[in-house]
Amino acid sequence: MATETELRAMRRAIDVARSVPRTLPNPRVGCVLLAPDGAEIAVGVHRGAGTPHAEADALARAGDQARGATAVVTLEPCNHTGRTEPCASALIAAGVARVIHAQTDPNPKAAGGAAALQAAGINVESGVLADEATALNVEWTFSITHGRPFVTWKYAATLDGLSAAPDGSSKWITSAEARRDVQAFRAESDAIMAGTGAVLADDPRLTVRDEDDLPLPYEQQPLRVVVGETQIPQYYRVFDRVAPTLLIQSRDPDTVLAKLTENEIHHVWLEGGPRLAGGFWNAGLIDRVIGYIAPSMLGSGRAALEGEATTLADLRPIDVQDLRTVGPDIRIIGTPGRCAREEMP
Amino acid sequence: MATETELRAMRRAIDVARSVPRTLPNPRVGCVLLAPDGAEIAVGVHRGAGTPHAEADALARAGDQARGATAVVTLEPCNHTGRTEPCASALIAAGVARVIHAQTDPNPKAAGGAAALQAAGINVESGVLADEATALNVEWTFSITHGRPFVTWKYAATLDGLSAAPDGSSKWITSAEARRDVQAFRAESDAIMAGTGAVLADDPRLTVRDEDDLPLPYEQQPLRVVVGETQIPQYYRVFDRVAPTLLIQSRDPDTVLAKLTENEIHHVWLEGGPRLAGGFWNAGLIDRVIGYIAPSMLGSGRAALEGEATTLADLRPIDVQDLRTVGPDIRIIGTPGRCAREEMP
Repeated sequence: MATETELRAMRRAIDVARSVPRTLPNPRVGCVLLAPDGAEIAVGVHRGAGTPHAEADALARAGDQARGATAVVTLEPCNHTGRTEPCASALIAAGVARVIHAQTDPNPKAAGGAAALQAAGINVESGVLADEATALNVEWTFSITHGRPFVTWKYAATLDGLSAAPDGSSKWITSAEARRDVQAFRAESDAIMAGTGAVLADDPRLTVRDEDDLPLPYEQQPLRVVVGETQIPQYYRVFDRVAPTLLIQSRDPDTVLAKLTENEIHHVWLEGGPRLAGGFWNAGLIDRVIGYIAPSMLGSGRAALEGEATTLADLRPIDVQDLRTVGPDIRIIGTPGRCAREEMP
Repeated sequence: MATETELRAMRRAIDVARSVPRTLPNPRVGCVLLAPDGAEIAVGVHRGAGTPHAEADALARAGDQARGATAVVTLEPCNHTGRTEPCASALIAAGVARVIHAQTDPNPKAAGGAAALQAAGINVESGVLADEATALNVEWTFSITHGRPFVTWKYAATLDGLSAAPDGSSKWITSAEARRDVQAFRAESDAIMAGTGAVLADDPRLTVRDEDDLPLPYEQQPLRVVVGETQIPQYYRVFDRVAPTLLIQSRDPDTVLAKLTENEIHHVWLEGGPRLAGGFWNAGLIDRVIGYIAPSMLGSGRAALEGEATTLADLRPIDVQDLRTVGPDIRIIGTPGRCAREEMP
């Protein structure tokens, strides 16, 4: 059983992991090393691909003091040689006496760390505050478990569900506050995806920008993904040098997701158009919806979603996790469920 | 200046007026009679067409005690012989010494009461707590002032703005809680209106029902109004004996409103279909929107509103007065504003 001191250390490790905004495609991980008397020796955190894992970071800070220490880690130490040596080996080599971890590694390539530690005679405790730690990496965990990226679909529409007027004009239906809010979500994604139709119509940047509308550095930009078979001229903004761009010449959701998986994308942020979103919607491949609804109506125009319902059994319920106003707009965040047709035997 | 005692009496008159759920087509009015020492002699309230006005009700209860009293009324006493004698005359005949009223009567046919009282030597004070009193009769006041009924449009839709699947199925998109909520609003309307298309498609009852889905008595039912040129067979529920029904064989909003005005309708509750709502929407003749939005999406189906927008300048903003959840659904109440196109010189 983890002691009160160890639980406190785990909460601290979770907080430290959360403090890093972006570690993608890796998960956020924090580690605290405790002396046998419970005193904190060192804190480590993972800062993204190519940088040390949280355990290695903590061990480097602790030096010789790690011998006999307890390592408190938010994720099971990896047992896999990637860009860095396996954390399990590093903890064994450092002479750590006990390891407490929260989430068990869902990644079959990296799992086995706890077993390796135990085989080396280290006392291991698993699953301590596992839910809190898993919440740090919801989309990453989903992606590792399901073998495909977590898909968040964002849309903006009027109360009558329209994202553009009949002539295609859509700037702006929602408020500046809502558009700023979107930037914060984009920043936490691995990729920002749009269909060729939406790119041709709106020439979007698909980048993450700060409060002054200036783009974040290239290294912090999610991958831009343009999906569809229509050619996009090179002068479109999606091809500028602000962020990398991947073209996927297929609208088949499975093909698109396979391509994203190849590119180590765990969480894709899907924005327009309605046809691309509709393809994912029909296939039940939207894992989260974030909708911004403006308090206005058009009466006719282009739908936010072009799906394939025929009758009410195709109605897909949304389990609402969050509902609030952002500026003058309504924001709803939820998880699409199964429609009645899918529930039928 | 009204005294503290008189202000307190006016608040009581407002509360008493509010306690009557339905006085249509008349306004809700309350009256308190105070003795010279400020003691309450009698309280009167108007209970609907054909019953005494609030002042007459209070005077009848007070009897001889009314002589020398102060009458505190939420609406300027009428000066008009309708189904009852003018209240101004009744107050004069009863020997009332002072009259305080809140809202000034916006009805030119009934106005002039304050002047008649003053001409008879009675001390009159107008406009005391006028805003609170006017709030008792927002739609009636609008109707009297504008010469047409106040139009509330109610719709129910998915997050993608659809009120029915492509095959017309729509039972039910919103929750039982939302449908019960609608009954409470219907009960406060003079008329419940739908287009022939909606009636043919859904065979709605257009009545007010209680918690057990039983209809209120005939006398308490709003007028059912069916609008359009398509013939509705007599076996449709809209022709049952639960409530009166008016057919208007025109979809022109101005013609419809003129017919409703002829029928003493001050507040019409407009429900489906999208084409009828669209006609009123395009003409800027919707004074209040009450939308119930279910946390679900269809992807294709029939829009809640069929308007005539062409570009984003046709976007009509909605000034939101109330936003909340009703059961699992979102309810939004607001006032449609002018679109940018209408604001242009």
